[in-house]
Amino acid sequence: MKMNKNLPNCPVETTLMLMGDKWKVLIVRDLLIGTKRFGELKKSLTGISQKVLTQHLRAMENNGLISRKVYAEVPPKVEYSLTELGQSLKQVHDAMLVWGTAYKSRNGQNK
Amino acid sequence: MKMNKNLPNCPVETTLMLMGDKWKVLIVRDLLIGTKRFGELKKSLTGISQKVLTQHLRAMENNGLISRKVYAEVPPKVEYSLTELGQSLKQVHDAMLVWGTAYKSRNGQNK
Repeated sequence: MKMNKNLPNCPVETTLMLMGDKWKVLIVRDLLIGTKRFGELKKSLTGISQKVLTQHLRAMENNGLISRKVYAEVPPKVEYSLTELGQSLKQVHDAMLVWGTAYKSRNGQNK
Repeated sequence: MKMNKNLPNCPVETTLMLMGDKWKVLIVRDLLIGTKRFGELKKSLTGISQKVLTQHLRAMENNGLISRKVYAEVPPKVEYSLTELGQSLKQVHDAMLVWGTAYKSRNGQNK
């Protein structure tokens, strides 16, 4: 994990710098459930390209949010999981979950 | 406020649809403090263009997150504030604030 010494003054902006992208939040959502392979993430994140998913996973690995484990198998098996720091994003995810659930209910969509 | 009948199944994605953009989160941050004029928002959101700020404010107004009050003055005075629904995003904002503060502290940046 690289230490980032040029963080914005505002802590909210700091959070946005690290996960202020729709895909990054959804990657956190998927990995909060458990370890996933690249293909599983790609299938879950409808519409994401291989290139963009790779870029996000690499950025999140560099920022210490996720870890990547490569198994010496043929074909190679690569698994992604949240680090302890990544797991701590659960509170941000959960706040979005609560708000989205209330908003959907207000719009007459309960599921 | 338009009712949105085509929300994603996942409540987290619903939240992201409505505020899953860096600027939208920062507009919420600024308006949580209080009513602001267009120029005040533009000054606070370093780097945003007039066009993008206008687009975000309009989208957030359409989604019922903010309200816009026009005063019959010359030059016209326009004020933006959070609606009750917009105010309810405080919990999402606060989760980002807490996480960002902890992350900055971990990186040796306490302010």
